[in-house]
Amino acid sequence: MTSTTTYLVNGMTCGHCVAAVTEELSTLEGVREVVVELAPEGSSAVQVTSDEPLVDEQVRDAVDEAGYELAGTA
Amino acid sequence: MTSTTTYLVNGMTCGHCVAAVTEELSTLEGVREVVVELAPEGSSAVQVTSDEPLVDEQVRDAVDEAGYELAGTA
Repeated sequence: MTSTTTYLVNGMTCGHCVAAVTEELSTLEGVREVVVELAPEGSSAVQVTSDEPLVDEQVRDAVDEAGYELAGTA
Repeated sequence: MTSTTTYLVNGMTCGHCVAAVTEELSTLEGVREVVVELAPEGSSAVQVTSDEPLVDEQVRDAVDEAGYELAGTA
């Protein structure tokens, strides 16, 4: 069983931002896939699939580390 | 004597874009400094200082290589 959650992330504007967030989230243990639907004018949808449900605080830290703001879950 | 020209570049939205354009332009021979004034909603001003005036086509190619569009000079 895997767990998939869609997070809303503010501040992402381009492909570089997508790469940065994807790379950072991929370092979290158990993460299998990250799919980003970029919304340069608003909150981008970042879908993360992992072996086990992720801890929100870890996701928030990873997004923050990449330079963006976790706005919540979709 | 150095030469400084300000180019207008479309499509740059964030610090990653600034880094990409700066890095690409810095590879051109004679380039000493690149200063970018980011305008996410329009044309960003990219000021390039070089030992000799640059050939427009080289600048265009470098900007294109970075993934953006040279819109002209300021």
